[in-house]
Amino acid sequence: MPALHTQPTEVSYSYLGPAGTFTEAALKQVPDAAGKTWHAVNNVGEALADVVSGRSTAAMIAMENSVEGGVSATQDALANMPGLRIIGEYLVPVRFELVARPGTALADVRTINAHPVAYAQCGTWLNQALPGHGHIPASSNVAAAATLLHGSLADAAIAPIGITEHYPLDVLADNIGDNNNAVTRFVLVSRSRVLPAPTGADKTSLIVELPDDVSGSLLGMLEQFSTRGVNLSLIESRPIGDALGRYRFIIDADGHISDERMADALLGLRRFSPNVLFLGSYPRADKQAIEFTSRYDDAIFVEARQWLAGLLDPTAEG
Amino acid sequence: MPALHTQPTEVSYSYLGPAGTFTEAALKQVPDAAGKTWHAVNNVGEALADVVSGRSTAAMIAMENSVEGGVSATQDALANMPGLRIIGEYLVPVRFELVARPGTALADVRTINAHPVAYAQCGTWLNQALPGHGHIPASSNVAAAATLLHGSLADAAIAPIGITEHYPLDVLADNIGDNNNAVTRFVLVSRSRVLPAPTGADKTSLIVELPDDVSGSLLGMLEQFSTRGVNLSLIESRPIGDALGRYRFIIDADGHISDERMADALLGLRRFSPNVLFLGSYPRADKQAIEFTSRYDDAIFVEARQWLAGLLDPTAEG
Amino acid sequence: MPALHTQPTEVSYSYLGPAGTFTEAALKQVPDAAGKTWHAVNNVGEALADVVSGRSTAAMIAMENSVEGGVSATQDALANMPGLRIIGEYLVPVRFELVARPGTALADVRTINAHPVAYAQCGTWLNQALPGHGHIPASSNVAAAATLLHGSLADAAIAPIGITEHYPLDVLADNIGDNNNAVTRFVLVSRSRVLPAPTGADKTSLIVELPDDVSGSLLGMLEQFSTRGVNLSLIESRPIGDALGRYRFIIDADGHISDERMADALLGLRRFSPNVLFLGSYPRADKQAIEFTSRYDDAIFVEARQWLAGLLDPTAEG
Amino acid sequence: MPALHTQPTEVSYSYLGPAGTFTEAALKQVPDAAGKTWHAVNNVGEALADVVSGRSTAAMIAMENSVEGGVSATQDALANMPGLRIIGEYLVPVRFELVARPGTALADVRTINAHPVAYAQCGTWLNQALPGHGHIPASSNVAAAATLLHGSLADAAIAPIGITEHYPLDVLADNIGDNNNAVTRFVLVSRSRVLPAPTGADKTSLIVELPDDVSGSLLGMLEQFSTRGVNLSLIESRPIGDALGRYRFIIDADGHISDERMADALLGLRRFSPNVLFLGSYPRADKQAIEFTSRYDDAIFVEARQWLAGLLDPTAEG
Repeated sequence: MPALHTQPTEVSYSYLGPAGTFTEAALKQVPDAAGKTWHAVNNVGEALADVVSGRSTAAMIAMENSVEGGVSATQDALANMPGLRIIGEYLVPVRFELVARPGTALADVRTINAHPVAYAQCGTWLNQALPGHGHIPASSNVAAAATLLHGSLADAAIAPIGITEHYPLDVLADNIGDNNNAVTRFVLVSRSRVLPAPTGADKTSLIVELPDDVSGSLLGMLEQFSTRGVNLSLIESRPIGDALGRYRFIIDADGHISDERMADALLGLRRFSPNVLFLGSYPRADKQAIEFTSRYDDAIFVEARQWLAGLLDPTAEG
Repeated sequence: MPALHTQPTEVSYSYLGPAGTFTEAALKQVPDAAGKTWHAVNNVGEALADVVSGRSTAAMIAMENSVEGGVSATQDALANMPGLRIIGEYLVPVRFELVARPGTALADVRTINAHPVAYAQCGTWLNQALPGHGHIPASSNVAAAATLLHGSLADAAIAPIGITEHYPLDVLADNIGDNNNAVTRFVLVSRSRVLPAPTGADKTSLIVELPDDVSGSLLGMLEQFSTRGVNLSLIESRPIGDALGRYRFIIDADGHISDERMADALLGLRRFSPNVLFLGSYPRADKQAIEFTSRYDDAIFVEARQWLAGLLDPTAEG
Repeated sequence: MPALHTQPTEVSYSYLGPAGTFTEAALKQVPDAAGKTWHAVNNVGEALADVVSGRSTAAMIAMENSVEGGVSATQDALANMPGLRIIGEYLVPVRFELVARPGTALADVRTINAHPVAYAQCGTWLNQALPGHGHIPASSNVAAAATLLHGSLADAAIAPIGITEHYPLDVLADNIGDNNNAVTRFVLVSRSRVLPAPTGADKTSLIVELPDDVSGSLLGMLEQFSTRGVNLSLIESRPIGDALGRYRFIIDADGHISDERMADALLGLRRFSPNVLFLGSYPRADKQAIEFTSRYDDAIFVEARQWLAGLLDPTAEG
Repeated sequence: MPALHTQPTEVSYSYLGPAGTFTEAALKQVPDAAGKTWHAVNNVGEALADVVSGRSTAAMIAMENSVEGGVSATQDALANMPGLRIIGEYLVPVRFELVARPGTALADVRTINAHPVAYAQCGTWLNQALPGHGHIPASSNVAAAATLLHGSLADAAIAPIGITEHYPLDVLADNIGDNNNAVTRFVLVSRSRVLPAPTGADKTSLIVELPDDVSGSLLGMLEQFSTRGVNLSLIESRPIGDALGRYRFIIDADGHISDERMADALLGLRRFSPNVLFLGSYPRADKQAIEFTSRYDDAIFVEARQWLAGLLDPTAEG
């Protein structure tokens, strides 16, 4: 299917739309994306399909939420669509507001339209401020807000902060989430096989399956990192989906594949696991430099290889 | 609040209703529940609140799905509601059918009402059989089916198999899920502190937080099990919710708290972890006897304690 | 054999004699031994047999030398004589001098009588100062020195510093050992089953056999200590003696059996190993307080046990 | 010092003499040594010095005894003489006999000349057959036997079986050792840097120092082997000699340095340890093929390297 791999004639980006979503806020953080074509799509699957087909150069997708955890749809899509690479990471604070048609008072609100996840994250405030209200589930908070102006049966909607820049709605209450520190981690995904250059503050993302039984093999998998001094910032399990008790693990490891210790851990992992998917090495959004003990410095790895080569070489000096 | 802990005057059960749900199918597997009062509730939080308040003796809740993984809402509710104990485990095969108002033909279906999870699990069939259809999200599949008869805007609904025993609907297609082996694991939760008797085919459920950094401490936590020969059948991470990168782990371990090796592992875990929640020891649904090497037999633990006592006793024979 | 276990009517001590040995220097460090009967014996086996038979209250024996390592004879004797307990530890610096009959000059020395171990430890000095000398092996350095006065064929002997307090010999050279920091560790061994009280600066000595294969089981054995935060200050292998590749391990662990973490490690060890010999808990000679992280404090162990008891008790508050 | 490294003009071998020793018996097992010059030397240090200086092509030295354990002198000599390589392994059963001047009856024996180690290994028989006998320590059993004919003060000597082929002595008793399965392991050591070809039944010998504290770092060192599926057939500790509690470890690992898993373990070890001495890879005396799980097969290592190279190559197919 050569058409699939045609390079797009112009640089363009796909993201979960419409305008006003947290995903759009993440994409606004990408300097290269400014002034380029942006495709608003309906879900993460569509966004990644745009990249695979070549319609878009890259897609911004939500990876993890500090309250809800890993985004299952993203994790499962990445696990099943080969050839994709993460090339950047972006953090967006999660702030919700309650919006309504102009003229609505908070006391008038009987039913609220909202995505179930956002609805759950605002539960404390909603139960206090609007006891007895009803919830109409939406597939998108921005859509819930937008349809308030086009026949929605609801009186109000939960929407990401800034929605009123896009729609003429009133804000009935601001910052209604349970957790003020909530943040969502987005990643920019492309088909490019050129690795972002190491910066010293990098992250490597992997999806790893385990051999055999869970407990012993999870220990064995973690040792592949620990014996090379590689720390993990994220490890999440996801069912493979074929039977209860079968998992893959979504892993973010500190460092870049061009770091010797990371490359060696990947070798160990590949030998250990029936299936390792490398999702990319890329700069961390928080730009925090990776710390590791000098025992795992690149030079130590190079020296060890030279030593081994010397042992194997009959002409070397002993 | 003494009223909270009053024993219910009659034995009763809460479950995610209405009639026809998979949860009801799980509750039907409980011999003691036959002929008792059943309370259909709207979500897992309500079901557990019924148990805590004493309104119900026990609640049946969905714990894990072989396709979707752990049920986050259940895991988070159990983590935050102290005093609950799992007393039984039940498996229900996940089978979906597409239902519609009598007289509807498959070719007439334009929009489908369904819970997003069920909708996702039927994606392959839907995209083939009904390309271009629309999805209206529902908070419950049974509700989606029921409202077809009461003003639903949708043409069809995805519902659990058997729904037509409860509602006069037509089945347009059967077994439309992507995975024919899909199964959901339910648990029966009560306030009783009497442990189910060990059967040799038991499971112990825990929620464990990790100290400090993730990678080293996850290894350390797993070693608490492995050094006592205890295997894990489930380990899932869930964000604690206060910041990115902070997790608790949902664990099912093979064996009963009255097994010496399990009791010792729990001691090690309690010392290791800042927070261990014991959710119960109960018979496995699959009745598969736990296998472990003789090194971890109860008698070995008892003998070791006697040996240590002898060392500490100045009057013992050397 | 009741006679074997008769308590000695008076307190007495056995040690590797004659007067002047390093072992005697160690025994001089024991306050309780001052003014009591001391039995000079020929080897560690005799010394321990005196304790087993009740002839002596305790025996001072050499355990480890900083140059030569563990004293095999002591390790093997302790492994094979049950019922003995170490009750104290003493360090003696190893300093050798070259002694000769009065009137002998260094230049006259052709042959040297010395125990092979001492001879090896003075090799550097001897080869420089007396090139071409001959070595007559002795079973004891003090004996080698003493027999210079009674028909020895040698011209000089290597002896422990201070030997001239006991024999009218001339010191030809002082401090002739290769390593000025050399030290020998002695232990006082008794049949008493009363454990020395914990001081916070204690040591626990063990002899442990491994199950099955060496590499995996050695890891498993070490984990019994590491998962309870117990550090080892000594681990030496000794062949069990029945076949190549079968070992027992001589272990000194930081802490006292009355420390919770040590007691728990001993339980784990007893369950893991086919054979664990507890040699005693006793104050360290260097009086250096044991450091351990607060995670392994006694209170943590006690609290965990209470928590477990609460889980098992149906009447406890949840 | 070019003279040191001159190849000997003819192939020759050094061994612990004189004729009749167990070491000579080991050298007789080497097909290449037949008909060549053999140098009988006084100790392992001399034997190795012959190799270093180029006087001998190779030296046969005792490495380990099933009763006494590792031969400290050999271990320490190998640790301190760089540039040596083990090229072969040989096993010799340890069988002792009691020999005396012709005409001597067992009942006449009052004093026995013997190396202390051999004397200890015959303790059971000697105490039964000759209660009250005296022991004169010798530096060599063959020398003890030989000097019976040249002015020895002893009545009998303990000697290796076969001694009467070399000296006109009478055998008073045969097979007097405590352990009939006792065996000594010898190795042939050369300066050659050409590795013996892998046979599938090979052994790799190492001397490894540990970083920092003993217990955690010993675990870390052992993991370098276990995470690559390499088993150890020998691990012995030896004091480094500068202070109590500082050890090096003498290790025999299953496999050849040209096996991928062994090479990788050596890399990990070199990075982990402040000092790794490679003593050689050579065929096992028992010719027992090494068993390992297919996960650690060479092909798995090669495939993992190719996979990693593909990840790093922007032009590779994803």
